[in-house]
Amino acid sequence: MATRSTWQSLRLAIALLLPVSTGVFASPEPGPTGHGLMQGFPPIAEQRVKRETTMIAPFNRWAFQHIRELHPTRVVLRDAARVSPLASDLRDLGGFSAPVREGRVATLEQLLDASHTDAFLVLHRGRIVYERYLNGMQPYTPHLMFSCTKSFVGTMMLMLIEQGRVDAAKPVSHYVPELARSAFGEASVQQVLDMTTSIRFEEVYADHDSDWGRYGDVFGMYGATTGNRKGPTSIFDYLPTLEREGAHGRAFHYVTPNTDVLGWILSRVTGLSVAAALETMLWQPLGAEHDGYIWLDAGGREMAGAGLNIAPRDAARFGQMILEQGRFDGRQVVPAAVAARILRPGNAEIFTKLYPDDPWYGPIGHSYHDQWWSFNNAHDTVSAIGIHGQYIWLDPVAQMVVVKVSSSPDAEGGANDLNDSDLPLLYHALAEHLMRQ
Amino acid sequence: MATRSTWQSLRLAIALLLPVSTGVFASPEPGPTGHGLMQGFPPIAEQRVKRETTMIAPFNRWAFQHIRELHPTRVVLRDAARVSPLASDLRDLGGFSAPVREGRVATLEQLLDASHTDAFLVLHRGRIVYERYLNGMQPYTPHLMFSCTKSFVGTMMLMLIEQGRVDAAKPVSHYVPELARSAFGEASVQQVLDMTTSIRFEEVYADHDSDWGRYGDVFGMYGATTGNRKGPTSIFDYLPTLEREGAHGRAFHYVTPNTDVLGWILSRVTGLSVAAALETMLWQPLGAEHDGYIWLDAGGREMAGAGLNIAPRDAARFGQMILEQGRFDGRQVVPAAVAARILRPGNAEIFTKLYPDDPWYGPIGHSYHDQWWSFNNAHDTVSAIGIHGQYIWLDPVAQMVVVKVSSSPDAEGGANDLNDSDLPLLYHALAEHLMRQ
Repeated sequence: MATRSTWQSLRLAIALLLPVSTGVFASPEPGPTGHGLMQGFPPIAEQRVKRETTMIAPFNRWAFQHIRELHPTRVVLRDAARVSPLASDLRDLGGFSAPVREGRVATLEQLLDASHTDAFLVLHRGRIVYERYLNGMQPYTPHLMFSCTKSFVGTMMLMLIEQGRVDAAKPVSHYVPELARSAFGEASVQQVLDMTTSIRFEEVYADHDSDWGRYGDVFGMYGATTGNRKGPTSIFDYLPTLEREGAHGRAFHYVTPNTDVLGWILSRVTGLSVAAALETMLWQPLGAEHDGYIWLDAGGREMAGAGLNIAPRDAARFGQMILEQGRFDGRQVVPAAVAARILRPGNAEIFTKLYPDDPWYGPIGHSYHDQWWSFNNAHDTVSAIGIHGQYIWLDPVAQMVVVKVSSSPDAEGGANDLNDSDLPLLYHALAEHLMRQ
Repeated sequence: MATRSTWQSLRLAIALLLPVSTGVFASPEPGPTGHGLMQGFPPIAEQRVKRETTMIAPFNRWAFQHIRELHPTRVVLRDAARVSPLASDLRDLGGFSAPVREGRVATLEQLLDASHTDAFLVLHRGRIVYERYLNGMQPYTPHLMFSCTKSFVGTMMLMLIEQGRVDAAKPVSHYVPELARSAFGEASVQQVLDMTTSIRFEEVYADHDSDWGRYGDVFGMYGATTGNRKGPTSIFDYLPTLEREGAHGRAFHYVTPNTDVLGWILSRVTGLSVAAALETMLWQPLGAEHDGYIWLDAGGREMAGAGLNIAPRDAARFGQMILEQGRFDGRQVVPAAVAARILRPGNAEIFTKLYPDDPWYGPIGHSYHDQWWSFNNAHDTVSAIGIHGQYIWLDPVAQMVVVKVSSSPDAEGGANDLNDSDLPLLYHALAEHLMRQ
């Protein structure tokens, strides 16, 4: 999500403080049917989506619903014999208005449209109160969740810690000796969970010739999986190459490969791939309705930091389970202590050290721990968040879960994109609205 | 399946006529657990399966159950709300002995083991009488079916012909003008269905620097999907490059791209991808139990000739439906006329013209029409057959369906491999055995 340089550039766009220069929120270009991406046999050349354009607008509008058609993937099987019910109590929220930019309001419909939404689902007190699919998406379509993946991996790691199978105080090298000499070797598992490891790594999504670009290359994100730059094509070969910068534990630093380190520990301890662990530890106990899948590198290893693809109702089940102290549909899916830990506040001092200009911290309270974003507000809100507009937003006070999946042109949103600025305000307003009902 | 040169080389190995030189059928190397393919985090280098080793023994033992983990794929969704039942009446057939090579017998267990079986399922009168999973395979594992895929595509084409949406007598160029100047342009749809098109193409699986190898390159079968040899990486770009050899309609010539031409016609006429057509025309009406998927090229187009991956019980449902005049679980899935057409005999004269030495024709009666193998025997047997040991074998007289999926080291089997020689004899003996019960 966050990088020092992009946060700084975002200062220009702090949506909370800026007036809107044009009178309306512009709608993005039409969805696949409208713009014809991958339509016809064959699609016309300009409208073919290829592996190397997975992340590039407008191709990402198709790609994020079709990752398996572009990349190797591993299934996360549901238990077909036990799908947990999800009750509905639908309300007409499309016309609901929220205050967004200075002195202005926008309806939910307008915001969804303007923020490149593919699906939007709201649970209130465990029931679906609003559910929309756009841009050709269907209720059963797995959508790329990007860094929401981290919150699933973090939750599994907390489960292993709670079970005593992982000691959060132990160094990474205790579990993965291959990482002893890397940036991660002496970091504790908890520091990796909280992303307070000190690593020479800049997570700048817009620059493909960067640390992030090299991470993406491992997964063929920007081209052939055999590597454009002849770097490692297996995350197992890549992680040991990352170097330490300073002392661990002093400052939050958002670095996606931390989560791949958690995935490696998870596999070492459980003997399972990330997909198989997710299947047995969360997906099947949760009674997920649809199979999910995870994007793989050329060596068959999951992108634990950003590669999960799931359908929105299953993301909602996951969020609701955390709100219900780890229980869902009569089962204790994760220990109550794990759910409580996810819902606790973050550490503001550590969070702001490297991100003093974070546009969310001041007004919204945004910080990070255990692979979840924590908003430190009156609603004790936490969220899984992924680039290009992915959210699993949990509001324990309002008993509300919002799932939003999107295909925004920019990873973190720009001046014309609402994802990283207005949407948390919208979710909060929606929570207040539902609480009044 | 068949090529002139490989059929000729098979003469040396005509298993029916050769004595066994060693006293027992040798077991192949152990399955994934035993030989450690893709085990551990990371797997050791020698045991990593990569895209470029998909087809290479022993890596294919893992790859054929994990195609989606190596290649881009498109889902064929089941209808979760309607899975058709498949009753069981299990019998102990493992010790059943069949006559195989000259004067010898082997048990079913021995044959399955020696022929690199991943799953083996027998239906008799619509009930499962035998079901085994080996080499780490599970009942829900989709397995690569190779050219059994053709029989699914052929069946859909027969449905469109029966519905009057495709005219079998019309030339391919009527439906796909892009192919007008290619080998296929003036061929009729029926000639493409029967593979009596005359094309400059040698389907030699063992030679990757061949027409077959170039077809495989379109799908990254032997390496990067961006192409080792800089040829087309989209089947839509590749098919128009194939050249005509002589007059169409005179001789059977097994050329896989014929089926990709059928797929193109299918998509033009229905407006659906091959996967979506299969989903709506066969998979959901059949009440399939598991999702299937199809291997894609780098342009997102299905390998209609060989790319289907499905679980064995669903293959059995498909076969049983054909045996039941197109009905299954109370639904008419395909018109009775289509099922009857699939079950009719083949044309021996056309079949043997280019394959005079076919080791199966004389003793077994083997020929081809409508994308199905026809055995012209007393049981009116037909089969979908794929390289490396894939079968959906239908015996209408015995009311038996056999599904065998395998990962044989050689595409068509060699002197030590039983797939292409003893197995049809085994299936026939099994049919006789079940008829006596």
